[in-house]
Amino acid sequence: MTVATPLLDRASTPADLRKLEKSELQQLCDELRTEVIDAVSTTGGHLGSGLGVVELTAAIHYTFDTPRDRLIFDVGHQCYPHKVLTGRRDRIRTLRQKDGLSGFTKRAESEYDPFGAAHAATSISAALGMAVARDLKGEADKEAPEQDDRRVIAVIGDGSMSAGMAYEALNNAGDRASQLTVILNDNDMSIAPPVGAMSAYLARAASSGSYQGFRNLAKQLTKNLPKRIKNLAAKAEEYGRGMVTGGTLFEELGFYYVGPIDGHNLDHLLPVLENVKNITDGPVLVHVVTEKGRGYKMAKDKGDKLHAVSKFDVISGEEVAKKSNAPSYTGVFAEQLINDAKRDEKIVGITAAMPSGTGMDKFMKAFPDRTFDVGIAEQHAVTFAAGLAAEGIVPFCALYSTFLQRAYDSVVHDVALQNLPVRFAMDRAGLVGNDGATHAGAFDTAYLGCLPNMVLMAAGDEAELQAMVHTAALYDEHPIGFRFPRGEGLGVDLYEADKVPELEIGKGRILKEGSTVALLSFGGRLGETLKAADLLAQRGLSATVADARFAKPLDEDLIRRLAKEHEVLLCVEEGSIGGFGSFVLEFLVRDGLLDQGQLKVRTMHLPDVYQDQASPKEMYEEAKLQAEDIARQAMIALGQQELAADVTA
Amino acid sequence: MTVATPLLDRASTPADLRKLEKSELQQLCDELRTEVIDAVSTTGGHLGSGLGVVELTAAIHYTFDTPRDRLIFDVGHQCYPHKVLTGRRDRIRTLRQKDGLSGFTKRAESEYDPFGAAHAATSISAALGMAVARDLKGEADKEAPEQDDRRVIAVIGDGSMSAGMAYEALNNAGDRASQLTVILNDNDMSIAPPVGAMSAYLARAASSGSYQGFRNLAKQLTKNLPKRIKNLAAKAEEYGRGMVTGGTLFEELGFYYVGPIDGHNLDHLLPVLENVKNITDGPVLVHVVTEKGRGYKMAKDKGDKLHAVSKFDVISGEEVAKKSNAPSYTGVFAEQLINDAKRDEKIVGITAAMPSGTGMDKFMKAFPDRTFDVGIAEQHAVTFAAGLAAEGIVPFCALYSTFLQRAYDSVVHDVALQNLPVRFAMDRAGLVGNDGATHAGAFDTAYLGCLPNMVLMAAGDEAELQAMVHTAALYDEHPIGFRFPRGEGLGVDLYEADKVPELEIGKGRILKEGSTVALLSFGGRLGETLKAADLLAQRGLSATVADARFAKPLDEDLIRRLAKEHEVLLCVEEGSIGGFGSFVLEFLVRDGLLDQGQLKVRTMHLPDVYQDQASPKEMYEEAKLQAEDIARQAMIALGQQELAADVTA
Repeated sequence: MTVATPLLDRASTPADLRKLEKSELQQLCDELRTEVIDAVSTTGGHLGSGLGVVELTAAIHYTFDTPRDRLIFDVGHQCYPHKVLTGRRDRIRTLRQKDGLSGFTKRAESEYDPFGAAHAATSISAALGMAVARDLKGEADKEAPEQDDRRVIAVIGDGSMSAGMAYEALNNAGDRASQLTVILNDNDMSIAPPVGAMSAYLARAASSGSYQGFRNLAKQLTKNLPKRIKNLAAKAEEYGRGMVTGGTLFEELGFYYVGPIDGHNLDHLLPVLENVKNITDGPVLVHVVTEKGRGYKMAKDKGDKLHAVSKFDVISGEEVAKKSNAPSYTGVFAEQLINDAKRDEKIVGITAAMPSGTGMDKFMKAFPDRTFDVGIAEQHAVTFAAGLAAEGIVPFCALYSTFLQRAYDSVVHDVALQNLPVRFAMDRAGLVGNDGATHAGAFDTAYLGCLPNMVLMAAGDEAELQAMVHTAALYDEHPIGFRFPRGEGLGVDLYEADKVPELEIGKGRILKEGSTVALLSFGGRLGETLKAADLLAQRGLSATVADARFAKPLDEDLIRRLAKEHEVLLCVEEGSIGGFGSFVLEFLVRDGLLDQGQLKVRTMHLPDVYQDQASPKEMYEEAKLQAEDIARQAMIALGQQELAADVTA
Repeated sequence: MTVATPLLDRASTPADLRKLEKSELQQLCDELRTEVIDAVSTTGGHLGSGLGVVELTAAIHYTFDTPRDRLIFDVGHQCYPHKVLTGRRDRIRTLRQKDGLSGFTKRAESEYDPFGAAHAATSISAALGMAVARDLKGEADKEAPEQDDRRVIAVIGDGSMSAGMAYEALNNAGDRASQLTVILNDNDMSIAPPVGAMSAYLARAASSGSYQGFRNLAKQLTKNLPKRIKNLAAKAEEYGRGMVTGGTLFEELGFYYVGPIDGHNLDHLLPVLENVKNITDGPVLVHVVTEKGRGYKMAKDKGDKLHAVSKFDVISGEEVAKKSNAPSYTGVFAEQLINDAKRDEKIVGITAAMPSGTGMDKFMKAFPDRTFDVGIAEQHAVTFAAGLAAEGIVPFCALYSTFLQRAYDSVVHDVALQNLPVRFAMDRAGLVGNDGATHAGAFDTAYLGCLPNMVLMAAGDEAELQAMVHTAALYDEHPIGFRFPRGEGLGVDLYEADKVPELEIGKGRILKEGSTVALLSFGGRLGETLKAADLLAQRGLSATVADARFAKPLDEDLIRRLAKEHEVLLCVEEGSIGGFGSFVLEFLVRDGLLDQGQLKVRTMHLPDVYQDQASPKEMYEEAKLQAEDIARQAMIALGQQELAADVTA
């Protein structure tokens, strides 16, 4: 850093921050912003959202007594300024790196992160739990009254508010009298925010003592009717404020609404937060309007406000170009879906607020009327798709594997049970690198493979992905899913658009014939599995390499053949236990193929831990799913311990 | 039936129903009500909710062109009158029986059930999918304009409205211009409904043509601002109506709100539905107020309005007492939790709108301040529990196994990843009988067992359940879940309150020592497994019977011993593939225990199908998980095919 940061240098913890004068806070924020930009330029990460909440973060820590007061950031990708201010500045340039700071809030990392996140819309539920815990402990422990007034604050973006879970939590919180502050960070860029002196004044007035007095009166009148305010006086107050401020929806849910506030104006933020801190007889929602990418011209000028970036040049805002050897799986998926959609007008695409991450932005450009971004609402996305499928439409639900978890019952109850042919494109399967444990697509084969009616594929390379998209587009007997990794393909030749094959359901393929060891890959470890075969061959061990393609239905003929013709059968996948390997074992014992002791079978899957962030390669090394690990495992199973000891990465 | 039903006899399909005069409909409804009461008195089932929607169901079928118009009942437990009116009257006394009608809507059963249900809050998502499908097909197929005006109607109860998924769907639907009618069936019994001639008049007026004209004008003004109406004229209209009718929340979400309507008054219902049918430029929400158990005094007098009943006597309303040989698992769970909660004041209980089904009603009586019914909101329930656990509270989340599916990502991302000691009491594990496939607790061992940090138990009998509740209450190193079946225990002796043991984590137990076959049970099949050992003994085959207790962590010592000392190891569980048996196989191959061919291992789990309703015993027979099936499987593995052929149920 060549820029001087005199105030930030003094404020390495919130306690120090609180020693500053109010008049110094804006300069502190400017310094903090510079620091975050500089740090992210070297690490990559989420930039725009953090820049948007610099003032809000500083104001919260200045006003509230963190970490005693509990501050919970929803999603957590906006927490870099928070990390700088809470004793982690010295490690801020390790963000998202191996052994460095997480790119999200994380309990294990700091007492200032009382509840970790990375998926959206969990903060209000967690905050309510913490608020209720405080109240319970306060009641239980009369001798420790200092526990009674611990504040709980959740900061949630407007994007997260489309998720049903946020509504469930608001609905429940509004029904309970307790101190709980929800700060709605509204950085919607599509509509000019209703910010200005007048509304800031109204908000300040609304949260001040005198207005509270009337409010309390109105509240008493409507007591015991938290969700249906029937008293006309209270209603008139509510709707009167609603007309001016727009908070009626939250008032209906039992929250006291304050806002909108200019989230970059400390003269507005600080007094409002100070007032809100003293409302202890019910939940409050503070509506703060901020600007994503605030204070960094290069971010503000970009369409997505540099939401998530690679390393970049601070002056130009240009991201350091990644060397690309092969097309990304996401891109191949999108291209192939567009190709199929040209052929079949019944094909539609669905994304849950991740158009660019899933490639649905490309599909949307090609077929705007056939693309549905439903917001962060995965349950709805899947059942909406089920409704479409019930009417003969061909819906592709493009979700990250980790986010499909949010719609599990929709898959079980609406799709699989009714056997509706919804197509699931599961991106980011396996380990994903810098986003770490929260984003790993580790469990989908296990949690979908146990469901009747499901058909499950995984792409071994990018050409296979083309074929799987095409196959899913043509297949309508059952729901079908295909998983594929984050990042680039293996660099294999892609099919020409009109020559993409339709795969036979439940049939794998053999890539390399051998004799001693059978390596059976399901999914993105295929490249490493092929390399493992080379390592084995270099040591005189002949390996067959097969790509299972399907975890369900299994290619029983293929597995039987591999089992009978080899000494060792090794299953490889980048998913958890309970997935492909487990299904193979179940088949082998059912078929009696392990009864005679002629075959040694082993499964390789992700370890039974949540792995911290690192590069995907580092994570797979840690998971022991690299070529060397596969070769070594085969050698050990063959009893060739010495050879195995000799294989190094 | 001895009561004459002249009109109902003529109206066996909606087409016939529409031939009746409007003036005849109330009598039809009275006949329909009698028919439903009589049918349910012989089958058991959901009574109160169906009685509440008799008029609404008749009015919808009378007004709309079902099955061409799509009618989707949320949850579907209120669909008995619908089934009677849609060609299924002749089978209505087979409700919930083997090979009979499902107790819910079901696609496979009738074209009048375009989207099946049983879990809550899926209807609006599915309906929006169908509405969008109609619009897409209409656009695509200019030559089939008759497709263009197909109506889609969702009927959803106010209870379902606490589920976030309903909000996700409303939020998304409000953003799309298309015909879609959501009928909110409001039978909240805790608050007197605002029903009367005045509001019915207002509602009728609001949905009539002339009022629509003004509405359309207002809409144009606010075009492109579906979620933030900023035009003051539109706002004034909205809030003006909101103050009178209470529909502001839905208006904020982009719906045109109509209501409240008296759902038992056909003179109000029919004209409103007729008017609403013609609103095709945006979604409409019709707020209908009904009374659960309407028209049957015995239902109205009961606290839960005979929500779900056994067979009963129509005159007295008394349910036919079930013979009970042992306490129910649910009851044992509740008692034990109360016992532990007396010892530890940090223990709290959480239910998602199922207090009586989960036994939390008893806990609530004992500890009203430590019981939290969060509504149908499983995601929130689990993350709320995580927030409590993060603060040192000891939360027990009591959910049916099938409903925990709705909170899967909350378990993955908020509980397991953060290693927070939330306790999951998973009731209704395994097959559940008359509620059928939608309620089976089939998948939890698979979808939870793949998660790092989880500890998973299953109760082999009711005394074991006591021990598991107690163990979970004392254990705080990891999240921990225990599953137990629906219905009665085995009749074993229960522990005295102060003598309930704490189980050692990851340790099973041996109930019977034998030599040839090892039967390893996880969960509710333990009784059948013991019987199977007897069947084997009768044929001279010595069996060890072990109760694994834990699917995670596995008792590796026990499994190793069983594997080494027996010819056959048979794992038994009432869960899907990918669960306990799969984990045992993974351990066996990892440990090399299958390399020598000295052991034959087999797994028995639920079949890979969604099983239709029947009695639990019938369902387990079909699943081949009865004692005879277990004994037979052991014999076949031993090569004793002739003995096996001789074992009959």
